[in-house]
Amino acid sequence: MKIGILTSGGDCPGINATIRGVCKTAINNYGIEVYGIHSGFRGLLDNEIELLTDKSLSGLLNMGGTILGTSREKPFKKKGSTVDEDKVNTMLSNIEKANLECIVCIGGNGTQKTAAKLAETGVNVISIPKTIDNNVWGTDVSFGFDSAVTIATDAIDRLHSTASSHQRVMVIEVMGHKAGWIALYSGMAGGGDIILIPELEYDIHNIGNTIMNRLKRGKPYSIVVVAEGIKTENNMKAAQYIANEIEYETGFETRETVLGYIQRGGSPTAFDRNLATRMGGHATELIINKQFNRMVSLNGSDISSIPLHEVAGKLRLVPQDNDLIIQGRKMGICFG
Amino acid sequence: MKIGILTSGGDCPGINATIRGVCKTAINNYGIEVYGIHSGFRGLLDNEIELLTDKSLSGLLNMGGTILGTSREKPFKKKGSTVDEDKVNTMLSNIEKANLECIVCIGGNGTQKTAAKLAETGVNVISIPKTIDNNVWGTDVSFGFDSAVTIATDAIDRLHSTASSHQRVMVIEVMGHKAGWIALYSGMAGGGDIILIPELEYDIHNIGNTIMNRLKRGKPYSIVVVAEGIKTENNMKAAQYIANEIEYETGFETRETVLGYIQRGGSPTAFDRNLATRMGGHATELIINKQFNRMVSLNGSDISSIPLHEVAGKLRLVPQDNDLIIQGRKMGICFG
Amino acid sequence: MKIGILTSGGDCPGINATIRGVCKTAINNYGIEVYGIHSGFRGLLDNEIELLTDKSLSGLLNMGGTILGTSREKPFKKKGSTVDEDKVNTMLSNIEKANLECIVCIGGNGTQKTAAKLAETGVNVISIPKTIDNNVWGTDVSFGFDSAVTIATDAIDRLHSTASSHQRVMVIEVMGHKAGWIALYSGMAGGGDIILIPELEYDIHNIGNTIMNRLKRGKPYSIVVVAEGIKTENNMKAAQYIANEIEYETGFETRETVLGYIQRGGSPTAFDRNLATRMGGHATELIINKQFNRMVSLNGSDISSIPLHEVAGKLRLVPQDNDLIIQGRKMGICFG
Amino acid sequence: MKIGILTSGGDCPGINATIRGVCKTAINNYGIEVYGIHSGFRGLLDNEIELLTDKSLSGLLNMGGTILGTSREKPFKKKGSTVDEDKVNTMLSNIEKANLECIVCIGGNGTQKTAAKLAETGVNVISIPKTIDNNVWGTDVSFGFDSAVTIATDAIDRLHSTASSHQRVMVIEVMGHKAGWIALYSGMAGGGDIILIPELEYDIHNIGNTIMNRLKRGKPYSIVVVAEGIKTENNMKAAQYIANEIEYETGFETRETVLGYIQRGGSPTAFDRNLATRMGGHATELIINKQFNRMVSLNGSDISSIPLHEVAGKLRLVPQDNDLIIQGRKMGICFG
Repeated sequence: MKIGILTSGGDCPGINATIRGVCKTAINNYGIEVYGIHSGFRGLLDNEIELLTDKSLSGLLNMGGTILGTSREKPFKKKGSTVDEDKVNTMLSNIEKANLECIVCIGGNGTQKTAAKLAETGVNVISIPKTIDNNVWGTDVSFGFDSAVTIATDAIDRLHSTASSHQRVMVIEVMGHKAGWIALYSGMAGGGDIILIPELEYDIHNIGNTIMNRLKRGKPYSIVVVAEGIKTENNMKAAQYIANEIEYETGFETRETVLGYIQRGGSPTAFDRNLATRMGGHATELIINKQFNRMVSLNGSDISSIPLHEVAGKLRLVPQDNDLIIQGRKMGICFG
Repeated sequence: MKIGILTSGGDCPGINATIRGVCKTAINNYGIEVYGIHSGFRGLLDNEIELLTDKSLSGLLNMGGTILGTSREKPFKKKGSTVDEDKVNTMLSNIEKANLECIVCIGGNGTQKTAAKLAETGVNVISIPKTIDNNVWGTDVSFGFDSAVTIATDAIDRLHSTASSHQRVMVIEVMGHKAGWIALYSGMAGGGDIILIPELEYDIHNIGNTIMNRLKRGKPYSIVVVAEGIKTENNMKAAQYIANEIEYETGFETRETVLGYIQRGGSPTAFDRNLATRMGGHATELIINKQFNRMVSLNGSDISSIPLHEVAGKLRLVPQDNDLIIQGRKMGICFG
Repeated sequence: MKIGILTSGGDCPGINATIRGVCKTAINNYGIEVYGIHSGFRGLLDNEIELLTDKSLSGLLNMGGTILGTSREKPFKKKGSTVDEDKVNTMLSNIEKANLECIVCIGGNGTQKTAAKLAETGVNVISIPKTIDNNVWGTDVSFGFDSAVTIATDAIDRLHSTASSHQRVMVIEVMGHKAGWIALYSGMAGGGDIILIPELEYDIHNIGNTIMNRLKRGKPYSIVVVAEGIKTENNMKAAQYIANEIEYETGFETRETVLGYIQRGGSPTAFDRNLATRMGGHATELIINKQFNRMVSLNGSDISSIPLHEVAGKLRLVPQDNDLIIQGRKMGICFG
Repeated sequence: MKIGILTSGGDCPGINATIRGVCKTAINNYGIEVYGIHSGFRGLLDNEIELLTDKSLSGLLNMGGTILGTSREKPFKKKGSTVDEDKVNTMLSNIEKANLECIVCIGGNGTQKTAAKLAETGVNVISIPKTIDNNVWGTDVSFGFDSAVTIATDAIDRLHSTASSHQRVMVIEVMGHKAGWIALYSGMAGGGDIILIPELEYDIHNIGNTIMNRLKRGKPYSIVVVAEGIKTENNMKAAQYIANEIEYETGFETRETVLGYIQRGGSPTAFDRNLATRMGGHATELIINKQFNRMVSLNGSDISSIPLHEVAGKLRLVPQDNDLIIQGRKMGICFG
């Protein structure tokens, strides 16, 4: 049997571990030939496909990024009101010529949508969720998330030194798109005093009061963790807007840090490596069992899968009654 | 309301975060007075108890060890065939004098046993599982485990350099008592070629064959991860025994490393900090709801609790059909 | 004997280790009483002074920030054309009342200036250079620099994943004020392809050519490390300006990251801890030997000192013939 | 021009960065062809030599180990009273056949000896010191040392948690062969209370007193850092021997950790990467300037070189009047 594998969308720690998981299981256990498709769906259009060998998989487990490369190519994206049928046909013809019985698509929400469309054309597809943002619907956690939270938490740990030495308010902006997962988890793990996420409204007076109450309790400094996706005015970036508002409201010297791309790079955590390995292996099992057009997922501590069409187009946001939020509030952390 | 809190048994990353979680929830949200009991159950005997304040809780989230100190004191341990009643009475009298309505016990398997005995005397008890070994029955994961796996994985990553540069077999021994959790998780995350855990029998010829087969495939080096609890001969320590046997069997230059106490020390991972915080908060909730004599636990992604008497005396081992083992075998990893 | 110690200016890893070095040597070896002055020179004005004991020094070696707090108070700063004599007199009177025979000032260039002025009033002063920017004149290295370079290098390592996976140009801005030390050292250690520092002119065409030449050699991505102090147009921040220019010049998708405050926080490296300890100890030696009004310095591998008045007002920039620059150029790295 | 490069002896972080430094300078700046010789001097015997290209050098800067492989082959080692002339002739003939005008030898003390012997045969040699132990004579620091100290310091940091939580004495053994550099630098950076190195005699009563005095001052725990090379009885390993003696002398519960091979593996620190790069570049300069038979060295902050024959056979030990020892003693640290 021959299958193809591609990675699409933003890079994240653990992609290479997933590729390794899929391939080692496929090659070693089932004798499947696995073809690496370069630069996401663009590689299907340009027919950039190459056989992966034992050697290509060496050293992948702890390597950041993706050896296959990635792109934001969306072959089913409409131009005006119609899909570019030539593009789609090129892609299908390349898959057929290469004799690929299934395409494994590793990616985030955009990729799940494209994978679902590809499945509708009759191609066998298995997808694996991949995002530091943890916003793919249908899985409890995606690999990359723990790594991003770890990096963000480490950064917040460092800001405590400056905050307390200088009696300042330090605002740190973390990634997450429209979801607040990274901010919530790193904010709680890093000892943030105020945590702002897109899913919860915030009131700047309330934030100011929290800071002034800390001052009264002998803590003339605060750490504010904000998700990039929170509402701001005048198109300002999250950290800058909140820092301005806090300085205006409290008079405290306030400094902002935007953590940026270092959240997505580098070696995955042990947790993410094992999650990636298990998800990769499960993808291969689904192929062997001919359970196509499904996305691999984590349910509690079990790896399973759900139909791709149930996932596509949905977004996994932090629910209002999330455990960590409720717990944080009881401990006096301000969520807005 | 007044409650007491103690930490008992071996130290592990995340204890202080748990203490903080219990206390901040109790003090901030419910106005409970929390008394820190020093050096585990010994503090109940010696009446070393002191009120915890906002200030005592500062900086705890990422601090290793336990600010309360710990000991291996087991007040219900039999001398000959009888328990030392004087000890027990001293303890109960100290609890009564201090007016503590509940004792929160943070500890491993031994602590769970003692906590269950304490509950039998009529004292209200809530326990929280704490062990790097992940061998407490009744919870999917205990805090400390992810931190230990992270440290062990980092160590295994480092050994790859030496193994491949020198064409050697590197054997690393990790903790876990009679359970193989740390070895399994760090071995898989660190790219171990051979992983030996107490729950699975091993055959040294099989291990030797794995190493020789790697040589034939152009990989003249191997990483072997062994749990401290595996069977050996002549009372030899795990790594030393396996290294000797491999050298004898294959002729390969083989070196061993015993990771030791650095696995239990230092700052907890973000994952463990959040797990510890949630478990600590849940303990306080149980007290408020008068659901005593229960151990806080993690089920999938939910925090809940189970009756203490169900936990006591049991050990959580790696099941033979564990997901990671099955997945590892498919990828060609040797488990013995 | 009684002495005072203060920390002034921006915080940096290793200050607490220096305080520990000064105090442990003074207290343990010479029986000197050391008084901690809070929030830099502001503490001398407000008479916020307290005796440091063995207990205050516990856990300082690897703690970020400064336990004494810091401020940017400059008591000798002119208002209009005159110094505020009242301020100066308050300060001198507080020093006299507390019977402090010497003030140890730990700080950057601004602090060295203030310390020199204080010495001119007749107060005995010893200063210790402290800056992540490494721009204090008269010492080869200041503690904090190695820690900042380590954090920046780790960040650059992480950006490589994204750069190569996405075929992008990644621009990272690091600190350093008007000096390029952090950019140069982290850029070289992190494998930057282009490194821009304020001491060297740059030509955006040249930078563009470097990126296009890499593309031709099969490397369709580049890492650009820029010091915050480089020249830009329209008051733009360094990274943003360079990213815009590169995108315009090459058409490459370009992303910027501003590393910010995480460079100054957290635990110092082993190198910085030992440098801080040695410098702190040397400060105490100078006091014992009544060699006042000097700044402790590192010369090659030796700790010595130079007269404070030689330091004040000077800036240590990267020389054009710096070893690493010359070496980098030979390896094909573009410095502008 | 054609040159060869080999790495010999124990692996250490920064070797690959050095290879990169030599080669990028040679290839990019001078158009030299560089041939990688595999597995140290064994590759010269077996004629395992291959041209290094731009591609072979990709990703080397932060990679642990050595891509060239290493061995402990010593071609000039006497069998009985004579050198194996056939071996030597094979080696010389292979060098001649490959037309290599100079051999760059990266290694520790053993390698320096072999390199000096090779130079005596008339072959042009440049050597670069490489050892985590920092015991190569003629250079202030060798790359690998800062990385090893960093790992050891991190481990000591972790042990503090367990020591203070359990009121124990923790003994940690670090590498260094007959030199105490790693123990001294990591012991001071990690806050060791007792530091034992081969260069200083120790008295177990004195050590016991230090521990008991700490107990009296309210610190019922201690950290002991021992170099592997200290004197023990009955061939016992350093940590085990000292732990036994301390337990016997003080009655304190004492635990030992042998750090082992993780000290030599993994990614080099930023400091080591830059030192390695500069040393590698300097080696190429020496070749261009036909200054052969020299070892590259660090003097203070300058890279220079000394004649190989001055280095060979010498060992760089910690002098009795080392700065850090004197400073440590003043702070109350026990050196035996």
